[in-house]
Amino acid sequence: MTIIAFIGLGNMGGPMAGNLVKAGHTVVGFDFSEEARAAAKAAGVTIAADAKSAAAPADVIVTMLPAGKHVRAVWGELAPVAKKGTLFIDSSTIDVESARAVHRIAGDIGLPSVDAPVSGGTGGAKGATLTFMCGGEEAAFAAAKPILEKMGKKIVHCGGAGAGQAAKICNNMILGISMIAVAEGFVLAEKLGLDRQALFDVASTSSGQCWSLNAYCPVPGPVPTSPANNDYKPGFASALMLKDMKLSQEAAQAAGASTPLGAAATQLYGLHNAWGEGGTDFSGIINLIRGKS
Amino acid sequence: MTIIAFIGLGNMGGPMAGNLVKAGHTVVGFDFSEEARAAAKAAGVTIAADAKSAAAPADVIVTMLPAGKHVRAVWGELAPVAKKGTLFIDSSTIDVESARAVHRIAGDIGLPSVDAPVSGGTGGAKGATLTFMCGGEEAAFAAAKPILEKMGKKIVHCGGAGAGQAAKICNNMILGISMIAVAEGFVLAEKLGLDRQALFDVASTSSGQCWSLNAYCPVPGPVPTSPANNDYKPGFASALMLKDMKLSQEAAQAAGASTPLGAAATQLYGLHNAWGEGGTDFSGIINLIRGKS
Amino acid sequence: MTIIAFIGLGNMGGPMAGNLVKAGHTVVGFDFSEEARAAAKAAGVTIAADAKSAAAPADVIVTMLPAGKHVRAVWGELAPVAKKGTLFIDSSTIDVESARAVHRIAGDIGLPSVDAPVSGGTGGAKGATLTFMCGGEEAAFAAAKPILEKMGKKIVHCGGAGAGQAAKICNNMILGISMIAVAEGFVLAEKLGLDRQALFDVASTSSGQCWSLNAYCPVPGPVPTSPANNDYKPGFASALMLKDMKLSQEAAQAAGASTPLGAAATQLYGLHNAWGEGGTDFSGIINLIRGKS
Amino acid sequence: MTIIAFIGLGNMGGPMAGNLVKAGHTVVGFDFSEEARAAAKAAGVTIAADAKSAAAPADVIVTMLPAGKHVRAVWGELAPVAKKGTLFIDSSTIDVESARAVHRIAGDIGLPSVDAPVSGGTGGAKGATLTFMCGGEEAAFAAAKPILEKMGKKIVHCGGAGAGQAAKICNNMILGISMIAVAEGFVLAEKLGLDRQALFDVASTSSGQCWSLNAYCPVPGPVPTSPANNDYKPGFASALMLKDMKLSQEAAQAAGASTPLGAAATQLYGLHNAWGEGGTDFSGIINLIRGKS
Repeated sequence: MTIIAFIGLGNMGGPMAGNLVKAGHTVVGFDFSEEARAAAKAAGVTIAADAKSAAAPADVIVTMLPAGKHVRAVWGELAPVAKKGTLFIDSSTIDVESARAVHRIAGDIGLPSVDAPVSGGTGGAKGATLTFMCGGEEAAFAAAKPILEKMGKKIVHCGGAGAGQAAKICNNMILGISMIAVAEGFVLAEKLGLDRQALFDVASTSSGQCWSLNAYCPVPGPVPTSPANNDYKPGFASALMLKDMKLSQEAAQAAGASTPLGAAATQLYGLHNAWGEGGTDFSGIINLIRGKS
Repeated sequence: MTIIAFIGLGNMGGPMAGNLVKAGHTVVGFDFSEEARAAAKAAGVTIAADAKSAAAPADVIVTMLPAGKHVRAVWGELAPVAKKGTLFIDSSTIDVESARAVHRIAGDIGLPSVDAPVSGGTGGAKGATLTFMCGGEEAAFAAAKPILEKMGKKIVHCGGAGAGQAAKICNNMILGISMIAVAEGFVLAEKLGLDRQALFDVASTSSGQCWSLNAYCPVPGPVPTSPANNDYKPGFASALMLKDMKLSQEAAQAAGASTPLGAAATQLYGLHNAWGEGGTDFSGIINLIRGKS
Repeated sequence: MTIIAFIGLGNMGGPMAGNLVKAGHTVVGFDFSEEARAAAKAAGVTIAADAKSAAAPADVIVTMLPAGKHVRAVWGELAPVAKKGTLFIDSSTIDVESARAVHRIAGDIGLPSVDAPVSGGTGGAKGATLTFMCGGEEAAFAAAKPILEKMGKKIVHCGGAGAGQAAKICNNMILGISMIAVAEGFVLAEKLGLDRQALFDVASTSSGQCWSLNAYCPVPGPVPTSPANNDYKPGFASALMLKDMKLSQEAAQAAGASTPLGAAATQLYGLHNAWGEGGTDFSGIINLIRGKS
Repeated sequence: MTIIAFIGLGNMGGPMAGNLVKAGHTVVGFDFSEEARAAAKAAGVTIAADAKSAAAPADVIVTMLPAGKHVRAVWGELAPVAKKGTLFIDSSTIDVESARAVHRIAGDIGLPSVDAPVSGGTGGAKGATLTFMCGGEEAAFAAAKPILEKMGKKIVHCGGAGAGQAAKICNNMILGISMIAVAEGFVLAEKLGLDRQALFDVASTSSGQCWSLNAYCPVPGPVPTSPANNDYKPGFASALMLKDMKLSQEAAQAAGASTPLGAAATQLYGLHNAWGEGGTDFSGIINLIRGKS
């Protein structure tokens, strides 16, 4: 039976660890939050005294942490205590440079590693329907895949070290821009007296179609399940979208890529957050664009 | 048998008029270009000496012209000579204000009218597979629909006067932004060493999916039919996308709508055109974003 | 003694007409607002029954109106009743295309004309310290100059028809962008813990210096006379800056000029206005940029 | 006599070290480039075998290096070998976070330190006319000031650790935006047929005035000394402006400041560099904006 250490048991990590338990794995976890530990314990996770204690006996170590600096710190702490052959998986969404740096931490002592950020949100974490975008060597990916399949339904190998993070931020940058594009379209329609359902009917079936419109429409009505119908309760919070947009811009600056609309969209989410809307769904950016009604 | 006057027999209007002939209508047309007249004649259109001569006997008058000022001038000229009950249809892509103004020209003398801009390009015009986005009163739309069905396969009633134009520019603004979003995603992927097919595989099946990516991918490879595989031959020329983006910005300024990404995208297409790329497909904007390789 | 017709006696036009009276001219004026007429009358302006009555006996006709369409209408109405040789001066801030169109209205019947928009605000109008940026033929400018000198202290001939409007919107586009640049600098300084006076001391004496910083600083303190010290009471209202920015974008679109920062700045003033701040000074844009404190 | 170690003897550091020699100081320097060492030697600098050898006997250590990571590495290496009481000065332009980190390196072992980035370019370095923007404790600044006065003519204390870097990037962000604003103004003027000298005459004396216009005009003619008159030879290279703009965006992202025009301007300099113009003066950005003539 594979023993899995799971470090970071928050809104995403907790349910993910629970799904590994359900699949029959022994999961030993740790989190600094007492509340997170309690919830994970209730889901069958064995709580360790600290990250090192969780990692020492593990065959696989999964981290789900807020930012690159945390992952760097935790992998740096755990790599020396890990058993020979232990597989490191990081499912956090972090900067590409940190992702590559932690691959090197593992690689330098001969351990296989995979960066495997997710999409699908807390719903996907609970329902084990996440998408994992993976980077790392072929053998490491092959070893990680059966584990990840217990937590998600789509596991994609995107390339070498960091490729999973790269794919995620490229995708999310496109998403973040598209959502504002759709929001601007609806605001323009409103000001022109064009009915929102009419715009939806035209654009969702022609060249304006996109996930932000067809699946997650930022105005109430056309897509009943979208957060716009539920007062913009997330879903995917604006603060998290801002985080991902900033990661894309950090990567673009470091790599020398121009992303003019990515930069402009990042600023708009930044303004939205600066005006206190970080906790609402990112599709609520339409309210910033529209102004006072 | 319905007699249809068709004013404007260019790359779009010519084949559209030809499809009306094929459907059994008597089509009397006019264009200032001798070449356009010759091509339309070959397709069975009766060529009139001028627009007025074409319009006088018509039951339906269709205009397909470059800009709002042309449509204003032609409807202004033809309304007085039109028979009682003649239906006016404008399929040009023009500014919303002009669209509403020409509805008034017809309405003031009791004639029904429809704004009916199209999407689908020259391929759709030839194959009679255009989408028509229509604005006008219910009865006018009902009268226009059977005519439009001879030239397209999807005929949508979007609302009152100008609603067709409004729907088209809202859709195309979303499209124009999305394409740059996708282009930026691919350029960032390149600079990060992420394979383009890997990005396509991830984004086209998750929240980054959009028509610009899934159907019209701006890098060669993933979508074999996209202009990127054919040296960015249009398709939909960058100069035409710029025209539509400018219409969206003109409407937004007049209506008091904020469209920050629409404005930024308009500027990028403007730069692309200023650097001599107006004749290439609009997905070639990726070359501006990428810079010299 | 020169008889001057003055059409448009609002916050700007009223005091300007008053200064012409002070200079000894006979001024016959008209405005649709009763309040404006009363104030002008108190300042010595003879109030006419309508614009035509004011214009008929005049040697010089000055217009000071909200937008291009008003100037087109008024010049179109007055040109036929004007005496031979009457000089037309438009001091409104309007779009370049309209400015050129009204020059043609006058020119077609052989009357000299000047476009002469102003800077300096209501303070400059009252104090006769306005700057006039003039377009038109040399002889027309020479005739207008002694009149304009009664209302301003700097009278610049910028070129042919429309050159005055062109110079004004180019200048004001630079101003509108610079103000946001300075606002962003101060907000960044705040977030970095850099004292605002320290930033002012450095930037106002080096390469960051500009009128928006040195003369009209958007944070309280460094420049005691700036609106930031008076709760952002205008000064130059954000709604008026938005109007000028829109004129610049309209001109840029029509002329095929790229103005990416001009477009971005226009959108930001648009958002600021959409959030109800049109009546505050345009330097208050810093509050949009900063967000909730 | 004060012994000064000078690490980094490039285009800026070399002449600066030479000016310290001229002022009578013993200067011991190091650079990895043989050419830089030779030039500094010719200017009277004693060349050490490595940075440590230069630093060991020094009373003051000055670093002038490309980026934060270099300064972190060099201060980390030299702090342990520095004499008690040695003053550390960093004149590199680097990110605020690194500036604060190296202050801590010195502070942790009780050494005084100052961040002191410069403006004024290679001309100012040679002529000892640089401006130094300084951050650090009062006593450290007081100790650094007489040294800095040998290399510059304006020495400003902006605040605590990192305040010098903060002031520099806030100033340069304003500069980078203003230059594009002015460039857009001239391009719009050109397209509207407004003479460039006329725009200069109006804007340079009214609310559009700024250093980018009045002192460094991006079109040939109005300001004879500006790089536009010399085929855009730098001056201040576009690649260096891009570096500073990126530092501003990095700081803004980390600090949570919105800088929408800063972000847009960064992207434009990025595009300009991506198209091969990094070596030309930053005022050459007008060529990107204008497009092909």
